[in-house]
Amino acid sequence: MLDTSQKIQIASQVKDMLNQARIVVTEEEMGQLEIAEYGMDLWSSIGLQIIVYVNTENCCAKEMILFPRQTCPEHRHPPMQGSAGKEETFRCRSGEVYLYVEGEVTPHPKAIAPKQREPYFTVWHEIILRPGDQYTLRPNMLHWFQAGPEGAIISEFSTQSHDETDIFTDPDIIRVPEAE
Amino acid sequence: MLDTSQKIQIASQVKDMLNQARIVVTEEEMGQLEIAEYGMDLWSSIGLQIIVYVNTENCCAKEMILFPRQTCPEHRHPPMQGSAGKEETFRCRSGEVYLYVEGEVTPHPKAIAPKQREPYFTVWHEIILRPGDQYTLRPNMLHWFQAGPEGAIISEFSTQSHDETDIFTDPDIIRVPEAE
Repeated sequence: MLDTSQKIQIASQVKDMLNQARIVVTEEEMGQLEIAEYGMDLWSSIGLQIIVYVNTENCCAKEMILFPRQTCPEHRHPPMQGSAGKEETFRCRSGEVYLYVEGEVTPHPKAIAPKQREPYFTVWHEIILRPGDQYTLRPNMLHWFQAGPEGAIISEFSTQSHDETDIFTDPDIIRVPEAE
Repeated sequence: MLDTSQKIQIASQVKDMLNQARIVVTEEEMGQLEIAEYGMDLWSSIGLQIIVYVNTENCCAKEMILFPRQTCPEHRHPPMQGSAGKEETFRCRSGEVYLYVEGEVTPHPKAIAPKQREPYFTVWHEIILRPGDQYTLRPNMLHWFQAGPEGAIISEFSTQSHDETDIFTDPDIIRVPEAE
């Protein structure tokens, strides 16, 4: 797993990427930056950085910052008591994003599934998002995404976020470490 | 009311402000820019520009672009069938925003209520938002806001948006013109 000095280094790179995109976040928000490792020890290929702006019982907004070719692994947001599951819109702010959802397989996809966990990337209908492009995912829809060679920043607008209930295709993934 | 050549000019200035803040919007989104005049013929003081990214039955995200000292007049989002009313978070992206809500009156507020309609600005608890600052409004909470001397861009994250049901303090305001 990442150690403290690595996390400090990552946070500093995240800040640089946000600055370059002129996205202003407060020091408090930077202090709450989440570096998701998914319990995999493959952070540079399977990992994600997240800054949550707001997450009430009604709606949620966050920025997701990805380094070049970094991947958010395949998962879905299942129905929960009283709700159909999380609905989310991804809007690309900078860089390029390769998003994969259920549907017709795209023959020559731009993303490269992380070699070590390749079997757990099962949906291959590709949507390419460039700055200003967005895509809305229905609740419970399987999806995963990877940043292009320059990295990417994605704004997410959604209903309430409950990361701990996400269902991942890869059985070894741990979304929220026990200690947290 | 604004004529077509004025609207083209406004759209061009909005695009410049978005470019300066490095907020990328598509041509299609720019084509759907809403210039709200509130039926007042006071657009430069009571007016607002809006680009809606997404508005599903569950959530909504938009950018609001305000010219210097332009004001969104006082209103609230009432309860509707099956919902408590719109909940919204305003996040300042550029410029300075003076937001007013119910609560203790701020003695020397930064905003100047538009002279012609002053009596209809009744809540004066001030929240100042600078880039990276945000504020979440509970449903049905009276509020209004004004951009500072440089103008402002605000991202709004909310539950479903139904502009036509907003309740304005000023009885002469028309939020959605009949012709639309």
